[in-house]
Amino acid sequence: MSDIRPQRRDPTTSRQHRFGRRASRPPTAAREPRSAGSWLYGTHAVAAALANPERRWHRLAVLAGREEEARRLVAEARAIRLGKDEAVRVLNHNDFAVILPVSAVHQGIALKVEALAERDLDDVLPSTAEAAGRSIILVVLDRISDPQNIGAVLRSAAAFGALALVVPARSTPSITGALAKAASGAVEIVPLVRVVNLARALDRLKASGFWICGLDETAPLPLARVEVGERIALVLGSEGAGMRRLVRERCDLLARLPTRAVQPTLNVSNAAAIALYELVRGDVS
Amino acid sequence: MSDIRPQRRDPTTSRQHRFGRRASRPPTAAREPRSAGSWLYGTHAVAAALANPERRWHRLAVLAGREEEARRLVAEARAIRLGKDEAVRVLNHNDFAVILPVSAVHQGIALKVEALAERDLDDVLPSTAEAAGRSIILVVLDRISDPQNIGAVLRSAAAFGALALVVPARSTPSITGALAKAASGAVEIVPLVRVVNLARALDRLKASGFWICGLDETAPLPLARVEVGERIALVLGSEGAGMRRLVRERCDLLARLPTRAVQPTLNVSNAAAIALYELVRGDVS
Repeated sequence: MSDIRPQRRDPTTSRQHRFGRRASRPPTAAREPRSAGSWLYGTHAVAAALANPERRWHRLAVLAGREEEARRLVAEARAIRLGKDEAVRVLNHNDFAVILPVSAVHQGIALKVEALAERDLDDVLPSTAEAAGRSIILVVLDRISDPQNIGAVLRSAAAFGALALVVPARSTPSITGALAKAASGAVEIVPLVRVVNLARALDRLKASGFWICGLDETAPLPLARVEVGERIALVLGSEGAGMRRLVRERCDLLARLPTRAVQPTLNVSNAAAIALYELVRGDVS
Repeated sequence: MSDIRPQRRDPTTSRQHRFGRRASRPPTAAREPRSAGSWLYGTHAVAAALANPERRWHRLAVLAGREEEARRLVAEARAIRLGKDEAVRVLNHNDFAVILPVSAVHQGIALKVEALAERDLDDVLPSTAEAAGRSIILVVLDRISDPQNIGAVLRSAAAFGALALVVPARSTPSITGALAKAASGAVEIVPLVRVVNLARALDRLKASGFWICGLDETAPLPLARVEVGERIALVLGSEGAGMRRLVRERCDLLARLPTRAVQPTLNVSNAAAIALYELVRGDVS
Protein backbone atom coordinates (compact mmCIF):
# COMPACT_ATOMS: atom_id res chain seq x y z
CA MET A 1 0.00 0.00 0.00
CA SER A 2 1.31 3.40 -0.90
CA ASP A 3 1.33 6.07 1.79
CA ILE A 4 0.63 8.84 -0.64
CA ARG A 5 -2.50 7.96 -2.51
CA PRO A 6 -4.53 10.28 -4.73
CA GLN A 7 -8.08 10.87 -3.55
CA ARG A 8 -10.29 8.33 -5.33
CA ARG A 9 -8.53 8.78 -8.65
CA ASP A 10 -10.05 6.23 -11.02
CA PRO A 11 -7.10 4.31 -12.48
CA THR A 12 -9.24 2.88 -15.25
CA THR A 13 -9.77 6.30 -16.78
CA SER A 14 -6.74 8.31 -15.78
CA ARG A 15 -3.80 5.98 -15.68
CA GLN A 16 -2.92 5.79 -19.32
CA HIS A 17 -3.14 9.51 -19.57
CA ARG A 18 -0.92 9.98 -16.53
CA PHE A 19 1.82 7.94 -18.09
CA GLY A 20 1.52 9.65 -21.41
CA ARG A 21 0.51 6.59 -23.43
CA ARG A 22 -2.28 8.35 -25.22
CA ALA A 23 -1.94 6.19 -28.32
CA SER A 24 -3.24 3.08 -26.55
CA ARG A 25 -6.14 4.85 -24.90
CA PRO A 26 -9.49 3.76 -26.29
CA PRO A 27 -11.19 6.55 -28.23
CA THR A 28 -14.44 6.17 -26.28
CA ALA A 29 -12.77 6.89 -22.94
CA ALA A 30 -11.91 10.44 -23.96
CA ARG A 31 -15.53 11.26 -24.69
CA GLU A 32 -16.88 9.63 -21.57
CA PRO A 33 -17.29 11.85 -18.51
CA ARG A 34 -15.36 10.54 -15.51
CA SER A 35 -18.48 10.46 -13.34
CA ALA A 36 -20.49 8.23 -15.68
CA GLY A 37 -21.75 5.02 -14.12
CA SER A 38 -20.95 3.25 -10.90
CA TRP A 39 -18.95 0.17 -10.01
CA LEU A 40 -20.46 -3.25 -9.40
CA TYR A 41 -18.07 -5.84 -7.97
CA GLY A 42 -17.87 -9.51 -7.04
CA THR A 43 -18.01 -12.55 -9.29
CA HIS A 44 -21.76 -13.16 -9.39
CA ALA A 45 -22.79 -9.51 -9.57
CA VAL A 46 -20.41 -8.84 -12.47
CA ALA A 47 -21.21 -12.06 -14.34
CA ALA A 48 -24.95 -11.36 -14.12
CA ALA A 49 -24.48 -7.78 -15.30
CA LEU A 50 -22.43 -8.94 -18.29
CA ALA A 51 -25.12 -11.51 -19.10
CA ASN A 52 -27.92 -8.95 -18.95
CA PRO A 53 -28.56 -7.57 -22.45
CA GLU A 54 -30.25 -4.51 -20.94
CA ARG A 55 -27.21 -3.54 -18.88
CA ARG A 56 -24.89 -0.95 -20.43
CA TRP A 57 -21.35 -1.07 -19.14
CA HIS A 58 -18.20 0.93 -19.63
CA ARG A 59 -15.25 -0.95 -18.25
CA LEU A 60 -14.32 -4.27 -16.71
CA ALA A 61 -11.54 -4.16 -14.11
CA VAL A 62 -9.71 -7.38 -13.28
CA LEU A 63 -7.13 -7.90 -10.57
CA ALA A 64 -3.68 -8.77 -11.88
CA GLY A 65 -3.22 -12.54 -11.58
CA ARG A 66 -6.91 -13.31 -11.91
CA GLU A 67 -7.18 -12.76 -15.66
CA GLU A 68 -7.81 -16.46 -16.33
CA GLU A 69 -10.69 -16.63 -13.87
CA ALA A 70 -12.16 -13.44 -15.31
CA ARG A 71 -11.77 -14.77 -18.84
CA ARG A 72 -13.77 -17.89 -17.95
CA LEU A 73 -16.41 -15.80 -16.21
CA VAL A 74 -16.80 -13.44 -19.12
CA ALA A 75 -16.84 -16.28 -21.66
CA GLU A 76 -19.74 -17.88 -19.78
CA ALA A 77 -21.61 -14.61 -19.67
CA ARG A 78 -21.03 -13.04 -23.06
CA ALA A 79 -18.40 -13.05 -25.76
CA ILE A 80 -16.13 -10.11 -25.10
CA ARG A 81 -12.42 -10.41 -25.71
CA LEU A 82 -10.58 -9.99 -22.44
CA GLY A 83 -7.19 -8.41 -23.00
CA LYS A 84 -8.05 -7.40 -26.55
CA ASP A 85 -11.14 -5.41 -25.80
CA GLU A 86 -10.17 -1.86 -24.94
CA ALA A 87 -12.80 -1.74 -22.20
CA VAL A 88 -10.96 -4.28 -20.05
CA ARG A 89 -8.23 -3.24 -17.64
CA VAL A 90 -5.97 -5.36 -15.48
CA LEU A 91 -5.39 -3.54 -12.19
CA ASN A 92 -3.26 -4.19 -9.14
CA HIS A 93 -4.52 -4.22 -5.55
CA ASN A 94 -3.85 -0.52 -4.97
CA ASP A 95 -5.76 0.50 -8.07
CA PHE A 96 -8.72 -1.60 -6.96
CA ALA A 97 -8.61 0.17 -3.61
CA VAL A 98 -8.92 3.50 -5.41
CA ILE A 99 -12.00 2.67 -7.46
CA LEU A 100 -13.97 0.69 -4.83
CA PRO A 101 -15.09 1.38 -1.23
CA VAL A 102 -12.70 0.32 1.53
CA SER A 103 -14.71 -2.68 2.69
CA ALA A 104 -15.70 -3.96 -0.76
CA VAL A 105 -15.19 -7.73 -1.13
CA HIS A 106 -14.53 -7.49 -4.85
CA GLN A 107 -13.14 -10.97 -5.58
CA GLY A 108 -10.79 -9.39 -8.09
CA ILE A 109 -13.42 -8.19 -10.53
CA ALA A 110 -15.43 -5.00 -10.99
CA LEU A 111 -17.60 -3.58 -13.74
CA LYS A 112 -18.43 0.07 -14.29
CA VAL A 113 -22.05 0.20 -15.36
CA GLU A 114 -24.90 2.52 -16.17
CA ALA A 115 -27.94 2.26 -13.94
CA LEU A 116 -30.72 0.07 -15.31
CA ALA A 117 -33.80 1.90 -16.57
CA GLU A 118 -36.24 2.66 -13.77
CA ARG A 119 -39.41 0.54 -13.88
CA ASP A 120 -42.89 1.62 -12.90
CA LEU A 121 -45.29 -0.62 -11.09
CA ASP A 122 -47.43 -0.78 -14.24
CA ASP A 123 -44.42 -1.89 -16.27
CA VAL A 124 -43.90 -4.99 -14.17
CA LEU A 125 -47.49 -6.12 -13.60
CA PRO A 126 -48.50 -8.82 -16.06
CA SER A 127 -51.81 -8.62 -17.85
CA THR A 128 -54.58 -10.88 -16.58
CA ALA A 129 -54.16 -13.07 -19.66
CA GLU A 130 -50.39 -13.47 -19.16
CA ALA A 131 -50.79 -14.33 -15.52
CA ALA A 132 -53.68 -16.78 -15.81
CA GLY A 133 -53.25 -19.86 -13.69
CA ARG A 134 -49.93 -19.04 -12.07
CA SER A 135 -49.31 -17.37 -8.77
CA ILE A 136 -47.58 -14.02 -8.71
CA ILE A 137 -45.64 -12.71 -5.74
CA LEU A 138 -44.42 -9.18 -5.21
CA VAL A 139 -42.21 -8.28 -2.26
CA VAL A 140 -42.70 -4.88 -0.66
CA LEU A 141 -40.21 -3.41 1.82
CA ASP A 142 -41.06 -0.49 4.09
CA ARG A 143 -38.47 1.36 6.18
CA ILE A 144 -35.59 -0.91 5.12
CA SER A 145 -32.60 1.22 4.25
CA ASP A 146 -29.64 -1.13 4.64
CA PRO A 147 -28.25 -1.93 1.16
CA GLN A 148 -27.13 -5.40 2.22
CA ASN A 149 -30.59 -6.31 3.47
CA ILE A 150 -32.23 -5.02 0.31
CA GLY A 151 -29.72 -6.92 -1.82
CA ALA A 152 -30.28 -10.12 0.15
CA VAL A 153 -34.07 -9.80 -0.26
CA LEU A 154 -33.63 -9.31 -4.02
CA ARG A 155 -31.56 -12.48 -4.08
CA SER A 156 -34.25 -14.53 -2.35
CA ALA A 157 -36.91 -12.91 -4.54
CA ALA A 158 -35.03 -14.19 -7.60
CA ALA A 159 -34.55 -17.64 -6.09
CA PHE A 160 -38.28 -18.01 -5.46
CA GLY A 161 -39.44 -16.34 -8.65
CA ALA A 162 -40.97 -13.17 -7.23
CA LEU A 163 -42.00 -10.65 -9.86
CA ALA A 164 -40.44 -7.50 -8.39
CA LEU A 165 -39.34 -5.74 -5.23
CA VAL A 166 -41.33 -2.58 -4.45
CA VAL A 167 -39.79 0.09 -2.22
CA PRO A 168 -40.42 3.73 -1.28
CA ALA A 169 -38.25 5.86 -3.55
CA ARG A 170 -37.31 8.41 -0.91
CA SER A 171 -35.88 6.18 1.80
CA THR A 172 -34.33 3.44 -0.31
CA PRO A 173 -30.69 3.66 -1.40
CA SER A 174 -29.89 3.32 -5.08
CA ILE A 175 -28.31 0.17 -6.47
CA THR A 176 -24.71 0.51 -5.37
CA GLY A 177 -21.93 -2.04 -5.33
CA ALA A 178 -22.77 -3.25 -1.80
CA LEU A 179 -26.44 -3.82 -2.62
CA ALA A 180 -25.61 -5.57 -5.90
CA LYS A 181 -22.95 -7.72 -4.20
CA ALA A 182 -25.46 -8.94 -1.59
CA ALA A 183 -27.98 -9.57 -4.38
CA SER A 184 -25.38 -11.79 -6.09
CA GLY A 185 -26.70 -11.04 -9.57
CA ALA A 186 -30.39 -10.66 -8.68
CA VAL A 187 -30.42 -6.92 -9.48
CA GLU A 188 -30.28 -8.00 -13.13
CA ILE A 189 -33.25 -10.36 -12.73
CA VAL A 190 -35.76 -8.86 -10.28
CA PRO A 191 -36.81 -5.25 -10.96
CA LEU A 192 -36.45 -2.85 -8.03
CA VAL A 193 -39.52 -0.65 -8.40
CA ARG A 194 -39.29 2.70 -6.59
CA VAL A 195 -42.63 4.30 -5.84
CA VAL A 196 -43.27 7.80 -4.55
CA ASN A 197 -46.05 6.72 -2.20
CA LEU A 198 -46.02 3.15 -0.93
CA ALA A 199 -49.56 3.20 0.50
CA ARG A 200 -50.92 4.38 -2.85
CA ALA A 201 -48.90 1.68 -4.64
CA LEU A 202 -50.59 -0.92 -2.44
CA ASP A 203 -53.98 0.53 -3.41
CA ARG A 204 -52.94 0.17 -7.04
CA LEU A 205 -51.99 -3.47 -6.40
CA LYS A 206 -55.32 -4.17 -4.70
CA ALA A 207 -57.08 -2.79 -7.76
CA SER A 208 -55.06 -5.30 -9.82
CA GLY A 209 -56.29 -8.20 -7.73
CA PHE A 210 -53.39 -8.53 -5.30
CA TRP A 211 -53.85 -9.62 -1.70
CA ILE A 212 -51.72 -7.45 0.54
CA CYS A 213 -50.18 -9.69 3.20
CA GLY A 214 -48.08 -8.02 5.91
CA LEU A 215 -45.59 -9.94 8.04
CA ASP A 216 -46.05 -9.07 11.70
CA GLU A 217 -44.64 -10.89 14.72
CA THR A 218 -47.74 -10.11 16.75
CA ALA A 219 -50.27 -11.45 14.23
CA PRO A 220 -52.35 -14.36 15.57
CA LEU A 221 -52.07 -16.56 12.47
CA PRO A 222 -48.86 -18.07 11.11
CA LEU A 223 -48.29 -17.53 7.40
CA ALA A 224 -48.62 -21.27 6.74
CA ARG A 225 -52.27 -21.19 7.85
CA VAL A 226 -53.26 -18.10 5.91
CA GLU A 227 -55.30 -18.50 2.73
CA VAL A 228 -53.96 -16.21 0.06
CA GLY A 229 -55.04 -15.67 -3.52
CA GLU A 230 -52.96 -16.15 -6.65
CA ARG A 231 -51.63 -12.59 -6.53
CA ILE A 232 -49.81 -11.74 -3.34
CA ALA A 233 -47.92 -8.67 -2.24
CA LEU A 234 -45.80 -9.67 0.76
CA VAL A 235 -45.00 -6.62 2.92
CA LEU A 236 -42.15 -6.45 5.43
CA GLY A 237 -41.29 -3.53 7.71
CA SER A 238 -38.14 -2.77 9.66
CA GLU A 239 -36.95 -5.15 12.37
CA GLY A 240 -37.67 -2.79 15.19
CA ALA A 241 -40.49 -0.50 14.15
CA GLY A 242 -42.30 -2.67 11.60
CA MET A 243 -44.35 -1.07 8.83
CA ARG A 244 -45.56 2.53 8.89
CA ARG A 245 -49.17 2.89 9.97
CA LEU A 246 -50.48 3.91 6.54
CA VAL A 247 -48.79 0.89 4.97
CA ARG A 248 -50.00 -1.50 7.65
CA GLU A 249 -53.56 -0.25 7.25
CA ARG A 250 -53.48 -1.28 3.58
CA CYS A 251 -52.82 -4.92 4.47
CA ASP A 252 -55.70 -7.31 3.79
CA LEU A 253 -54.20 -9.71 6.29
CA LEU A 254 -51.32 -9.93 8.75
CA ALA A 255 -49.37 -13.11 9.41
CA ARG A 256 -46.40 -14.12 11.52
CA LEU A 257 -43.60 -16.60 11.09
CA PRO A 258 -43.60 -19.29 13.77
CA THR A 259 -40.41 -18.39 15.58
CA ARG A 260 -40.04 -19.49 19.19
CA ALA A 261 -40.61 -16.95 21.88
CA VAL A 262 -36.97 -16.31 22.76
CA GLN A 263 -34.94 -13.41 21.49
CA PRO A 264 -33.60 -12.65 18.97
CA THR A 265 -36.08 -12.38 16.15
CA LEU A 266 -35.21 -13.02 12.51
CA ASN A 267 -33.48 -10.42 10.45
CA VAL A 268 -35.53 -8.95 7.62
CA SER A 269 -33.77 -10.81 4.81
CA ASN A 270 -34.21 -14.15 6.55
CA ALA A 271 -37.86 -13.38 7.30
CA ALA A 272 -38.41 -12.50 3.63
CA ALA A 273 -36.68 -15.69 2.48
CA ILE A 274 -38.81 -17.86 4.77
CA ALA A 275 -42.04 -16.12 3.78
CA LEU A 276 -41.26 -16.50 0.07
CA TYR A 277 -40.45 -20.17 0.67
CA GLU A 278 -43.76 -20.68 2.48
CA LEU A 279 -45.70 -19.02 -0.33
CA VAL A 280 -44.18 -21.16 -3.11
CA ARG A 281 -43.63 -24.30 -1.00
CA GLY A 282 -46.65 -26.11 -2.37
CA ASP A 283 -46.03 -25.10 -6.00
CA VAL A 284 -42.43 -26.04 -6.52
CA SER A 285 -41.70 -28.83 -4.02
CA MET B 1 -11.93 13.57 13.20
CA SER B 2 -8.41 14.23 14.36
CA ASP B 3 -5.63 14.03 11.77
CA ILE B 4 -3.13 12.63 14.20
CA ARG B 5 -4.66 9.60 15.77
CA PRO B 6 -2.83 7.09 17.94
CA GLN B 7 -2.80 3.54 16.60
CA ARG B 8 -5.83 1.81 18.09
CA ARG B 9 -5.28 3.34 21.51
CA ASP B 10 -8.13 2.22 23.74
CA PRO B 11 -9.57 5.39 25.29
CA THR B 12 -11.45 3.38 27.89
CA THR B 13 -8.23 2.15 29.48
CA SER B 14 -5.60 4.76 28.70
CA ARG B 15 -7.28 8.12 28.69
CA GLN B 16 -7.42 8.80 32.39
CA HIS B 17 -3.80 7.82 32.72
CA ARG B 18 -2.75 10.05 29.82
CA PHE B 19 -4.25 13.08 31.43
CA GLY B 20 -2.73 12.29 34.80
CA ARG B 21 -6.03 11.83 36.63
CA ARG B 22 -4.91 8.69 38.32
CA ALA B 23 -7.10 9.31 41.35
CA SER B 24 -10.33 8.79 39.42
CA ARG B 25 -9.13 5.66 37.69
CA PRO B 26 -10.92 2.57 38.92
CA PRO B 27 -8.60 0.29 40.89
CA THR B 28 -9.44 -2.74 38.76
CA ALA B 29 -8.36 -1.06 35.54
CA ALA B 30 -4.74 -0.87 36.67
CA ARG B 31 -4.56 -4.60 37.24
CA GLU B 32 -6.26 -5.52 34.01
CA PRO B 33 -4.03 -6.13 30.99
CA ARG B 34 -4.89 -3.93 28.04
CA SER B 35 -5.37 -6.90 25.75
CA ALA B 36 -8.00 -8.59 27.91
CA GLY B 37 -11.29 -9.18 26.19
CA SER B 38 -12.77 -7.99 22.93
CA TRP B 39 -15.46 -5.49 22.03
CA LEU B 40 -19.04 -6.40 21.21
CA TYR B 41 -21.17 -3.59 19.79
CA GLY B 42 -24.70 -2.77 18.73
CA THR B 43 -27.83 -2.53 20.85
CA HIS B 44 -29.02 -6.14 20.72
CA ALA B 45 -25.59 -7.74 20.99
CA VAL B 46 -24.69 -5.63 24.04
CA ALA B 47 -28.09 -6.01 25.74
CA ALA B 48 -27.97 -9.79 25.35
CA ALA B 49 -24.41 -9.95 26.71
CA LEU B 50 -25.40 -7.87 29.75
CA ALA B 51 -28.37 -10.16 30.32
CA ASN B 52 -26.28 -13.32 30.12
CA PRO B 53 -25.16 -14.31 33.65
CA GLU B 54 -22.35 -16.40 32.16
CA ARG B 55 -20.83 -13.46 30.29
CA ARG B 56 -17.97 -11.67 32.07
CA TRP B 57 -17.49 -8.09 30.95
CA HIS B 58 -15.05 -5.30 31.70
CA ARG B 59 -16.38 -2.03 30.39
CA LEU B 60 -19.43 -0.53 28.78
CA ALA B 61 -18.78 2.32 26.34
CA VAL B 62 -21.63 4.66 25.50
CA LEU B 63 -21.60 7.43 22.90
CA ALA B 64 -21.99 10.90 24.36
CA GLY B 65 -25.61 11.97 23.95
CA ARG B 66 -26.96 8.43 24.03
CA GLU B 67 -26.64 7.90 27.79
CA GLU B 68 -30.41 7.83 28.28
CA GLU B 69 -30.92 5.14 25.66
CA ALA B 70 -28.07 3.11 27.13
CA ARG B 71 -29.48 3.54 30.63
CA ARG B 72 -32.81 2.09 29.53
CA LEU B 73 -31.10 -0.76 27.72
CA VAL B 74 -28.96 -1.63 30.72
CA ALA B 75 -31.88 -1.35 33.13
CA GLU B 76 -33.82 -3.85 31.04
CA ALA B 77 -30.88 -6.21 30.97
CA ARG B 78 -29.39 -6.03 34.46
CA ALA B 79 -29.09 -3.52 37.24
CA ILE B 80 -25.81 -1.73 36.87
CA ARG B 81 -25.52 1.94 37.68
CA LEU B 82 -24.67 3.83 34.53
CA GLY B 83 -22.57 6.90 35.28
CA LYS B 84 -21.81 5.79 38.81
CA ASP B 85 -20.35 2.44 38.02
CA GLU B 86 -16.64 2.81 37.23
CA ALA B 87 -16.95 0.28 34.43
CA VAL B 88 -19.08 2.62 32.32
CA ARG B 89 -17.50 5.26 30.10
CA VAL B 90 -19.15 7.92 27.98
CA LEU B 91 -17.10 8.37 24.80
CA ASN B 92 -17.27 10.71 21.85
CA HIS B 93 -17.34 9.65 18.19
CA ASN B 94 -13.57 9.75 17.80
CA ASP B 95 -12.99 7.57 20.82
CA PHE B 96 -15.48 5.04 19.47
CA ALA B 97 -13.57 5.03 16.20
CA VAL B 98 -10.42 4.12 18.11
CA ILE B 99 -11.80 1.10 19.96
CA LEU B 100 -13.92 -0.40 17.15
CA PRO B 101 -13.25 -1.45 13.53
CA VAL B 102 -13.80 1.21 10.86
CA SER B 103 -17.00 -0.27 9.46
CA ALA B 104 -18.60 -1.22 12.82
CA VAL B 105 -22.25 -0.14 13.04
CA HIS B 106 -22.09 0.30 16.81
CA GLN B 107 -25.33 2.20 17.46
CA GLY B 108 -23.53 4.16 20.17
CA ILE B 109 -22.87 1.27 22.51
CA ALA B 110 -20.07 -1.24 22.99
CA LEU B 111 -19.13 -3.74 25.67
CA LYS B 112 -15.68 -5.15 26.33
CA VAL B 113 -16.17 -8.79 27.21
CA GLU B 114 -14.35 -11.99 27.97
CA ALA B 115 -14.96 -14.86 25.56
CA LEU B 116 -17.61 -17.32 26.70
CA ALA B 117 -16.34 -20.68 27.89
CA GLU B 118 -15.80 -23.10 24.99
CA ARG B 119 -18.39 -25.88 24.87
CA ASP B 120 -17.80 -29.46 23.77
CA LEU B 121 -20.31 -31.41 21.74
CA ASP B 122 -20.93 -33.62 24.76
CA ASP B 123 -21.68 -30.55 26.91
CA VAL B 124 -24.56 -29.48 24.71
CA LEU B 125 -26.18 -32.82 23.91
CA PRO B 126 -29.13 -33.49 26.21
CA SER B 127 -29.54 -36.87 27.86
CA THR B 128 -32.13 -39.18 26.36
CA ALA B 129 -34.38 -38.55 29.35
CA GLU B 130 -34.16 -34.76 29.01
CA ALA B 131 -34.90 -34.90 25.32
CA ALA B 132 -37.78 -37.37 25.40
CA GLY B 133 -40.66 -36.38 23.17
CA ARG B 134 -39.27 -33.17 21.76
CA SER B 135 -37.35 -32.68 18.56
CA ILE B 136 -33.79 -31.47 18.71
CA ILE B 137 -32.05 -29.63 15.91
CA LEU B 138 -28.35 -28.95 15.59
CA VAL B 139 -26.98 -26.80 12.79
CA VAL B 140 -23.62 -27.74 11.29
CA LEU B 141 -21.68 -25.40 9.00
CA ASP B 142 -18.83 -26.58 6.81
CA ARG B 143 -16.50 -24.21 4.92
CA ILE B 144 -18.34 -21.08 6.03
CA SER B 145 -15.82 -18.50 7.15
CA ASP B 146 -17.67 -15.19 6.81
CA PRO B 147 -18.43 -13.84 10.32
CA GLN B 148 -21.64 -12.15 9.18
CA ASN B 149 -23.00 -15.38 7.70
CA ILE B 150 -22.12 -17.34 10.84
CA GLY B 151 -23.73 -14.66 13.03
CA ALA B 152 -26.88 -14.62 10.89
CA VAL B 153 -27.15 -18.43 11.13
CA LEU B 154 -26.78 -18.23 14.93
CA ARG B 155 -29.60 -15.70 14.97
CA SER B 156 -31.95 -17.96 13.01
CA ALA B 157 -30.87 -20.94 15.13
CA ALA B 158 -31.98 -19.01 18.23
CA ALA B 159 -35.26 -17.94 16.60
CA PHE B 160 -36.16 -21.54 15.77
CA GLY B 161 -34.84 -23.06 18.99
CA ALA B 162 -31.88 -25.02 17.61
CA LEU B 163 -29.66 -26.54 20.28
CA ALA B 164 -26.24 -25.42 19.02
CA LEU B 165 -24.18 -24.48 15.98
CA VAL B 166 -21.33 -26.89 15.24
CA VAL B 167 -18.36 -25.70 13.19
CA PRO B 168 -14.81 -26.84 12.36
CA ALA B 169 -12.48 -25.12 14.83
CA ARG B 170 -9.69 -24.49 12.34
CA SER B 171 -11.54 -22.61 9.63
CA THR B 172 -14.13 -20.74 11.69
CA PRO B 173 -13.41 -17.23 12.97
CA SER B 174 -13.80 -16.54 16.68
CA ILE B 175 -16.74 -14.56 18.03
CA THR B 176 -15.79 -11.03 17.11
CA GLY B 177 -17.89 -7.87 17.11
CA ALA B 178 -19.04 -8.35 13.50
CA LEU B 179 -20.19 -11.92 14.10
CA ALA B 180 -21.96 -10.98 17.35
CA LYS B 181 -23.60 -7.95 15.70
CA ALA B 182 -25.05 -10.13 12.91
CA ALA B 183 -26.21 -12.63 15.56
CA SER B 184 -28.07 -9.80 17.30
CA GLY B 185 -27.70 -11.37 20.75
CA ALA B 186 -27.84 -15.01 19.68
CA VAL B 187 -24.19 -15.67 20.63
CA GLU B 188 -25.42 -15.52 24.24
CA ILE B 189 -28.17 -18.07 23.58
CA VAL B 190 -26.96 -20.66 21.08
CA PRO B 191 -23.59 -22.28 21.86
CA LEU B 192 -21.04 -22.18 19.04
CA VAL B 193 -19.33 -25.57 19.34
CA ARG B 194 -15.91 -25.78 17.69
CA VAL B 195 -14.79 -29.28 16.84
CA VAL B 196 -11.38 -30.41 15.66
CA ASN B 197 -12.76 -32.89 13.14
CA LEU B 198 -16.22 -32.26 11.73
CA ALA B 199 -16.63 -35.70 10.12
CA ARG B 200 -15.84 -37.36 13.44
CA ALA B 201 -18.28 -35.03 15.23
CA LEU B 202 -21.00 -36.21 12.84
CA ASP B 203 -20.13 -39.82 13.70
CA ARG B 204 -20.49 -38.90 17.35
CA LEU B 205 -23.91 -37.37 16.61
CA LYS B 206 -25.03 -40.48 14.72
CA ALA B 207 -24.09 -42.55 17.75
CA SER B 208 -26.35 -40.27 19.80
CA GLY B 209 -29.31 -40.95 17.55
CA PHE B 210 -29.08 -37.90 15.24
CA TRP B 211 -30.06 -38.06 11.59
CA ILE B 212 -27.48 -36.19 9.55
CA CYS B 213 -29.32 -34.21 6.88
CA GLY B 214 -27.23 -32.28 4.35
CA LEU B 215 -28.65 -29.44 2.27
CA ASP B 216 -27.68 -29.88 -1.36
CA GLU B 217 -29.12 -28.08 -4.39
CA THR B 218 -28.72 -31.17 -6.53
CA ALA B 219 -30.57 -33.55 -4.20
CA PRO B 220 -33.69 -35.09 -5.76
CA LEU B 221 -35.96 -34.61 -2.74
CA PRO B 222 -37.03 -31.26 -1.29
CA LEU B 223 -36.59 -30.97 2.47
CA ALA B 224 -40.36 -30.73 2.96
CA ARG B 225 -40.78 -34.30 1.66
CA VAL B 226 -37.98 -35.85 3.68
CA GLU B 227 -38.81 -37.94 6.73
CA VAL B 228 -36.48 -37.09 9.57
CA GLY B 229 -36.31 -38.37 13.12
CA GLU B 230 -36.60 -36.37 16.32
CA ARG B 231 -32.89 -35.61 16.40
CA ILE B 232 -31.63 -33.81 13.35
CA ALA B 233 -28.24 -32.36 12.46
CA LEU B 234 -28.75 -29.99 9.54
CA VAL B 235 -25.52 -29.60 7.55
CA LEU B 236 -24.80 -26.70 5.17
CA GLY B 237 -21.67 -26.19 3.09
CA SER B 238 -20.36 -23.12 1.31
CA GLU B 239 -22.41 -21.47 -1.44
CA GLY B 240 -20.02 -22.40 -4.20
CA ALA B 241 -18.26 -25.58 -3.20
CA GLY B 242 -20.78 -27.16 -0.84
CA MET B 243 -19.66 -29.55 1.89
CA ARG B 244 -16.30 -31.27 1.94
CA ARG B 245 -16.43 -34.85 0.67
CA LEU B 246 -15.80 -36.45 4.06
CA VAL B 247 -18.59 -34.39 5.61
CA ARG B 248 -21.01 -35.10 2.77
CA GLU B 249 -20.34 -38.83 3.05
CA ARG B 250 -21.51 -38.74 6.65
CA CYS B 251 -24.96 -37.49 5.66
CA ASP B 252 -27.79 -39.99 6.11
CA LEU B 253 -29.81 -38.05 3.60
CA LEU B 254 -29.48 -35.07 1.28
CA ALA B 255 -32.29 -32.63 0.58
CA ARG B 256 -32.75 -29.45 -1.40
CA LEU B 257 -34.78 -26.31 -0.95
CA PRO B 258 -37.31 -25.78 -3.75
CA THR B 259 -35.85 -22.69 -5.36
CA ARG B 260 -36.73 -22.01 -8.96
CA ALA B 261 -34.19 -22.85 -11.60
CA VAL B 262 -32.95 -19.33 -12.27
CA GLN B 263 -29.81 -17.82 -10.81
CA PRO B 264 -28.96 -16.75 -8.18
CA THR B 265 -29.21 -19.34 -5.46
CA LEU B 266 -29.89 -18.53 -1.82
CA ASN B 267 -27.15 -17.32 0.45
CA VAL B 268 -26.15 -19.68 3.22
CA SER B 269 -27.85 -17.79 6.04
CA ASN B 270 -31.14 -17.61 4.14
CA ALA B 271 -30.89 -21.31 3.26
CA ALA B 272 -30.29 -22.15 6.92
CA ALA B 273 -33.24 -19.99 8.04
CA ILE B 274 -35.59 -21.65 5.55
CA ALA B 275 -34.41 -25.16 6.44
CA LEU B 276 -34.85 -24.49 10.18
CA TYR B 277 -38.32 -23.10 9.48
CA GLU B 278 -39.25 -26.19 7.49
CA LEU B 279 -38.04 -28.50 10.26
CA VAL B 280 -40.05 -26.79 13.01
CA ARG B 281 -42.95 -25.66 10.79
CA GLY B 282 -45.29 -28.40 11.95
CA ASP B 283 -44.33 -28.11 15.65
CA VAL B 284 -44.75 -24.43 16.28
CA SER B 285 -47.34 -23.22 13.75
